[in-house]
Amino acid sequence: MIKSFASDNWAGTSPEIMDALINANQGHSPAYGADPYTEEAKQEFKKLFGKKAETYFVYNGTAANIISLASNSRSFNSIICSSHAHINVDECGAGEKFAGTKLLDIANTDGKLTPEMILPHIKADRYPHQSVPGIISITQATELGTLYSVSEIKILADLAHKYKLLLHVDGARIANAAVALNCSMKEMITDTGVDILSFGGTKNGLMFGEAVVFLKPELADLFELFRKQGMQLASKMRFISVQFTALLKNNLWEKNARQANEMAQYLGAKLARIPEIKITQRIETNGIWAIIPKKLAEKMQQAQFFYPWDEAKDEYRIMTAYDTSKEEIDLFIETILS
Amino acid sequence: MIKSFASDNWAGTSPEIMDALINANQGHSPAYGADPYTEEAKQEFKKLFGKKAETYFVYNGTAANIISLASNSRSFNSIICSSHAHINVDECGAGEKFAGTKLLDIANTDGKLTPEMILPHIKADRYPHQSVPGIISITQATELGTLYSVSEIKILADLAHKYKLLLHVDGARIANAAVALNCSMKEMITDTGVDILSFGGTKNGLMFGEAVVFLKPELADLFELFRKQGMQLASKMRFISVQFTALLKNNLWEKNARQANEMAQYLGAKLARIPEIKITQRIETNGIWAIIPKKLAEKMQQAQFFYPWDEAKDEYRIMTAYDTSKEEIDLFIETILS
Amino acid sequence: MIKSFASDNWAGTSPEIMDALINANQGHSPAYGADPYTEEAKQEFKKLFGKKAETYFVYNGTAANIISLASNSRSFNSIICSSHAHINVDECGAGEKFAGTKLLDIANTDGKLTPEMILPHIKADRYPHQSVPGIISITQATELGTLYSVSEIKILADLAHKYKLLLHVDGARIANAAVALNCSMKEMITDTGVDILSFGGTKNGLMFGEAVVFLKPELADLFELFRKQGMQLASKMRFISVQFTALLKNNLWEKNARQANEMAQYLGAKLARIPEIKITQRIETNGIWAIIPKKLAEKMQQAQFFYPWDEAKDEYRIMTAYDTSKEEIDLFIETILS
Amino acid sequence: MIKSFASDNWAGTSPEIMDALINANQGHSPAYGADPYTEEAKQEFKKLFGKKAETYFVYNGTAANIISLASNSRSFNSIICSSHAHINVDECGAGEKFAGTKLLDIANTDGKLTPEMILPHIKADRYPHQSVPGIISITQATELGTLYSVSEIKILADLAHKYKLLLHVDGARIANAAVALNCSMKEMITDTGVDILSFGGTKNGLMFGEAVVFLKPELADLFELFRKQGMQLASKMRFISVQFTALLKNNLWEKNARQANEMAQYLGAKLARIPEIKITQRIETNGIWAIIPKKLAEKMQQAQFFYPWDEAKDEYRIMTAYDTSKEEIDLFIETILS
Repeated sequence: MIKSFASDNWAGTSPEIMDALINANQGHSPAYGADPYTEEAKQEFKKLFGKKAETYFVYNGTAANIISLASNSRSFNSIICSSHAHINVDECGAGEKFAGTKLLDIANTDGKLTPEMILPHIKADRYPHQSVPGIISITQATELGTLYSVSEIKILADLAHKYKLLLHVDGARIANAAVALNCSMKEMITDTGVDILSFGGTKNGLMFGEAVVFLKPELADLFELFRKQGMQLASKMRFISVQFTALLKNNLWEKNARQANEMAQYLGAKLARIPEIKITQRIETNGIWAIIPKKLAEKMQQAQFFYPWDEAKDEYRIMTAYDTSKEEIDLFIETILS
Repeated sequence: MIKSFASDNWAGTSPEIMDALINANQGHSPAYGADPYTEEAKQEFKKLFGKKAETYFVYNGTAANIISLASNSRSFNSIICSSHAHINVDECGAGEKFAGTKLLDIANTDGKLTPEMILPHIKADRYPHQSVPGIISITQATELGTLYSVSEIKILADLAHKYKLLLHVDGARIANAAVALNCSMKEMITDTGVDILSFGGTKNGLMFGEAVVFLKPELADLFELFRKQGMQLASKMRFISVQFTALLKNNLWEKNARQANEMAQYLGAKLARIPEIKITQRIETNGIWAIIPKKLAEKMQQAQFFYPWDEAKDEYRIMTAYDTSKEEIDLFIETILS
Repeated sequence: MIKSFASDNWAGTSPEIMDALINANQGHSPAYGADPYTEEAKQEFKKLFGKKAETYFVYNGTAANIISLASNSRSFNSIICSSHAHINVDECGAGEKFAGTKLLDIANTDGKLTPEMILPHIKADRYPHQSVPGIISITQATELGTLYSVSEIKILADLAHKYKLLLHVDGARIANAAVALNCSMKEMITDTGVDILSFGGTKNGLMFGEAVVFLKPELADLFELFRKQGMQLASKMRFISVQFTALLKNNLWEKNARQANEMAQYLGAKLARIPEIKITQRIETNGIWAIIPKKLAEKMQQAQFFYPWDEAKDEYRIMTAYDTSKEEIDLFIETILS
Repeated sequence: MIKSFASDNWAGTSPEIMDALINANQGHSPAYGADPYTEEAKQEFKKLFGKKAETYFVYNGTAANIISLASNSRSFNSIICSSHAHINVDECGAGEKFAGTKLLDIANTDGKLTPEMILPHIKADRYPHQSVPGIISITQATELGTLYSVSEIKILADLAHKYKLLLHVDGARIANAAVALNCSMKEMITDTGVDILSFGGTKNGLMFGEAVVFLKPELADLFELFRKQGMQLASKMRFISVQFTALLKNNLWEKNARQANEMAQYLGAKLARIPEIKITQRIETNGIWAIIPKKLAEKMQQAQFFYPWDEAKDEYRIMTAYDTSKEEIDLFIETILS
């Protein structure tokens, strides 16, 4: 059985999720989300984020981000984001294409936006020569493995609302963030004033499927139309919904994320003891960034593959997943030290 | 266990498909389609359609249609289609939005296009005031349950190529069509000259996933970029691929489609014997169109739900699926006659 | 000096308009419409359509139509229009591309929509599988030279508002229509409840420039942003504005349209007396549709060019313009009868 | 008669251009560019840029840029440009909307791109997660008044072609650049290998109208279709064409640009002698950037208005135009020193 440190989306389906899929495969069920499984999953999200939360399901993270942004902006708007944002660099221009908007990306070193970075882009008056900022989109945990604190999120939400913008959170790894911050989803998202959350499923053990959580129900008004036009309305929706119910019930999301995070700590500590290896970022969630001499890196990659991050600097990214185990790490370390 | 005659996408996942998903859930596998499962599935499609066939996977049928059309047209093109086409009436304008093209829909009574209908829309000269026809898109089996014969498809392909257009087939129910025509996929699609096929999976027993088969490999050149920009690149791609491998190996696609088609015949014959019911279309695949007095229809819908088609005429659509059984039909008939 | 019956956009610039351009060419003036000439022109439109009318200028008719439609719809909407509508057949898919919407075109024989045609396309419930009708767009005078009566416009406006749609009028030849109906612009447009009017200038003697008149000011809210994003914000705006001021002041619009209409009557009466020629439409504005034997038609076209309309039927379209003269027509008739 | 230093598009129409418009206003002429005036103008461009140059006319600069870019890229491409580029900051996201592409803007201090800035964004392999660079777009003269030398343009063209990209030049002020560099258009554009040029007219004395010059004729293939779909096909095209013929014949373009450039030198020299004023950029074309104490600036703006550039630094932009005169400058200086 192959394992890797390549990405948390190289992992398979969490066993509890697979069981849920098997259990849901009973007879006929209304298509396109009009089924009881979908209703149940939506209720689970209300338990997690509060009663006002309205949740919709799509196939993947790009769609969760872009369709929720598009349904709450107009083409003349700009979406303010980090230069490292997944929507900016890893979605092949899906935002520009589907929303028709400018992605106003701001350079930074740790994947995080601050009010100081954002403010110069906000104008008091609407001026037809330039795109009008409409939404601030941040990623939690960021694409560089860093975290916004709960209060940092609140500050950005307040800033957004002061200027009549929305705050969107790309939460492809939102579970890892909540575990790392030791807070509830409600504290991190609902109570800080976040408007829209892309809630990641795939990287936390789902076979497929992501959720869009609208914390203000009125923001969900047009989502179903844009989801269909955006080619993301699943006919056998129950097979996304039951995965989320299984993920949320009994806090599987927390268990899976905790395992990934703890294994990153465990592996990170072991790597830190290897003199040739230099950890380059604080290990906050389930990624380790490290400078590794090429030869050693190749030996390590043969044991369990992972990707280079910045080849010019011999920097690599090592990701753990919900299914990474201590035994696997011990064997990995043994192999590379042999 | 609820059953229905509502649609073949109310059915669950075919057991063989579910087994394939369970079997593929072993350890880590490269993301985004760089995995051996995906390679195997692509090879299975070559066995079915010929060695030149290049196949790519997406989540659903709307995406299979629209992204394959968009990647082989420019926004100034028009897509010629039937007024009943799924791309015209059931995709919320996804084609106009994503491809930027005009859908040039032609009115007809049986869901089928003929050369006589198409020719007036093709101009010898390119004329910048009007959209330039780029692709003819037909549906097989059509949205009205009818079929193009193999020679009719060839005639349309020849017409398309004569005027430098492409022929696209929306094959959401292509398996039902092949079984009904008693021909191979290669005979119906490759040998007739079809350029691009949306190969339906979901309505034939998959949990999710559709395939785009390019019969001319050069037409696939840009698909991966448009698929990503179209928000349809699955990270855990293996879970689409193994479903298709299971569907194609051992001809599960044929078995499932045959069952659905035969059950439509079986049910249709029984309904035809009920004096108040008038069958309105030839039963060629897995749908039955029938005029039914309202009161009887309601009784029938309570036994197993199905949708009205044309409420003004008391016409209904009754669909069978791969999992419809004789026992279920017998019980249904018994109930409604009681 | 060449004259023709090809189209009212083969004519040059009305002398009064050219004078206005020359007069406005004095020194510097703020760019992008912040100039006094533009303010004056907007006021002239208020005199014509009422105080609430908010008017903006663009370069041409396609832009007037598409940008006003796009700024008042979302991509999931459909625009209901006649199959003969300029937006449907003569704008190369600009609507689909820029607005992202479906043009829901309805077949008809005289270029006019009726409530009976429209009603089947309006659903009580919003249904994400299909585009949601957002705007009804009619053309006055139509592309087939016919006219909506004032009460017919009111009926369509009432219908639109009953279902929360907007009524847009493509008024490329709105001046010819008003003259033909012998009513004021206000009676035809404002008082009937029209929401948005594309007010044609070029076909009535302008060098370039069309106006978008929003009869309900709130509908203008986003237009300036879409106009800029739609590449239609003129930097030296004064040179559009002063043309409209000249057109509206002293009722030049009426004078020019009346001349074109009267010359169509005059020419039509003469043509009707030629036995081989059969007039096929009522001559209501400035176009004549007629079946003419090919040989005679060629002789006529050599005298003054005009376009074939339906070559299969030997039908031609003969257009007069603001600068068509009795002398020119007399000479034309003399030539073709010689 | 009001004059200003606000922008070269606050100026009116050059008298020679107005004469050309008056002369062209004779009788009827085929619409949409099929007229002899347009043919003549195209020939004039061949004289300036070489026989292969294919030229098309649009209404304004945004359209010249965006439609030429869109017709030579696909939505998955990115357009590499300076962060200060007009297409990036002054067109309200028209590029993202119409071309569907990502604008990959590169930060810089003088408005100019270098190979070192561009190279990191070019990948050897096509990778579907990221937009694929398709065109490099530079502005000559830049939005900061600076100039690329002829050899710098050649280096960028060679770089583009090495990686199968195109080089586009936004030449809203290309005439000012050619005069400043003391070279022919052919030397600067054709001989360096530029692929597409947006040739500015409005800022050099036209009433309206810009030209797109394709230096490689095959790149023009789709332009007419995108121009129509882009809402930029002028019906009375002759009135754009004759302006360009007048601009190119007798080198009016050079005369107008030279006057603007020389007046910037003349005014700049006078301003430089005022102790409180600090010129912040080399004066290369027709713009002067200067730090001016607020109180003095206000006095100057009352004499002849100009815009602030960077309010935080008390920096202003002072633009001359083809119609700026020595007398006007002398009076201006006199007034502000009084």
